[in-house]
Amino acid sequence: MGACNTITTMKSLNLDSIRESLIRQEDTIIFSLIERSKFPINSPVYSPSLVSTLPSSKSLLHFIVQQSEAIQSQVGRYGSPEEHPFFPDNLPSSVLPQYNHPQILHPTAAAININETIWDMYVNQLLPLFTTEGDDGNYVPTATSDLQCLQAISRRIHYGKFVAEVKYRDAPEDYGPAIRAQDRDALMELLTFEKVEEMLKRRVEKKARVFAQEVSLNDMDKREKYKIDPCLLPRLYGEWIMPLTKLVEVEYLLKRLD
Amino acid sequence: MGACNTITTMKSLNLDSIRESLIRQEDTIIFSLIERSKFPINSPVYSPSLVSTLPSSKSLLHFIVQQSEAIQSQVGRYGSPEEHPFFPDNLPSSVLPQYNHPQILHPTAAAININETIWDMYVNQLLPLFTTEGDDGNYVPTATSDLQCLQAISRRIHYGKFVAEVKYRDAPEDYGPAIRAQDRDALMELLTFEKVEEMLKRRVEKKARVFAQEVSLNDMDKREKYKIDPCLLPRLYGEWIMPLTKLVEVEYLLKRLD
Repeated sequence: MGACNTITTMKSLNLDSIRESLIRQEDTIIFSLIERSKFPINSPVYSPSLVSTLPSSKSLLHFIVQQSEAIQSQVGRYGSPEEHPFFPDNLPSSVLPQYNHPQILHPTAAAININETIWDMYVNQLLPLFTTEGDDGNYVPTATSDLQCLQAISRRIHYGKFVAEVKYRDAPEDYGPAIRAQDRDALMELLTFEKVEEMLKRRVEKKARVFAQEVSLNDMDKREKYKIDPCLLPRLYGEWIMPLTKLVEVEYLLKRLD
Repeated sequence: MGACNTITTMKSLNLDSIRESLIRQEDTIIFSLIERSKFPINSPVYSPSLVSTLPSSKSLLHFIVQQSEAIQSQVGRYGSPEEHPFFPDNLPSSVLPQYNHPQILHPTAAAININETIWDMYVNQLLPLFTTEGDDGNYVPTATSDLQCLQAISRRIHYGKFVAEVKYRDAPEDYGPAIRAQDRDALMELLTFEKVEEMLKRRVEKKARVFAQEVSLNDMDKREKYKIDPCLLPRLYGEWIMPLTKLVEVEYLLKRLD
């Protein structure tokens, strides 16, 4: 049965708990992409013309994400250090009593938000890779599916803050000099483990082969038919998720000693 | 790659296309339950005390679902005959040009909405079966996960309208007399195929065994560990989804000749 994958105590902040959460988040990302792939690209969702009657919105996706974030912000979503809005400007504050999230990260972490980059990557580069051409009119379910994908990918990438914190705590003597020298390249090198990255890419491909398969009672049926191409996953991780996570880690570490 | 599973033309309304959509929706339901199981039950999400500062809301879940539906309604979600709101009263109308959804169902279909029953089943009966005890403070992600589950289950059950329509069109001579006699029992009998239901239960259990497994590069690792108990799925379908779908089918057919 389900295990909670949230950092709830200082004690649980170690590389094992971080790794467990990152691994679980892989499943979430794969599920969300599979769900988005039910619909064709539905390009009107990303264009201003469909929402010309909604003056402040650039697209239906923009409207759905911004409005959903506003609702969720009112009830405290962004009080969690694991959550990052795509539209942080003018978000309503929470009307609920504040949940006491443990203070694990350095306070400067709150200022790091690369969702603009993630949005651009998702809409312009990733989406065309795993959706079919076409328009079936299911614009709102498409946009809410996109919201799930965007939130899952954003959460995974910004989790780099926790990764960086635990790595720093495990070896402050290694990271300290590079931080004091504000040396991005040295930090990037310290944070890069090619073998681990290769293993991760193999794992997400394997997961996609499992989760994206067509399952039927007859094992000979539809074998080797996938809802999304499993090779999309190592590419998504190799080209975008891992580099952007490391970018977050570097940004975090640069201010870790402020 | 993704196939569109939406009824877009009259021509595509046949038992095969319906079956394909229902089978694909099984995956969606299983994914959504797996995602919800990441969090413990988080009971404050369902209680009025957490949202006492939001006067019109009965719970955080109520707030998230009602507000999300209002946003999505503004951009046309409920113009689709496949979508059914949980809070249909006072939903804002769409500000977008209306998408021309094909008119497949009898016009009385629009009045059939059993989401109140589905909500009660989900919150009071299903949730405790697949979530662990506990409270991790992730209330908003929990409620948005619930929204995904509720929408997936609701869509599946209300798809009974299309199932009933295609069954009626295939054999009006079988259904006509029972409809004219307004004989619920006779309709229920005509709509019940025990062998098909047993096969469906076996299929969703098999799917859950695939999708809920822990996948790692080492095949000996974590084998037979599931994120949700695969036996939950035949139970969910046998006790709730199939009976409620048939209820929708009967309600639809009773007015099919109006």
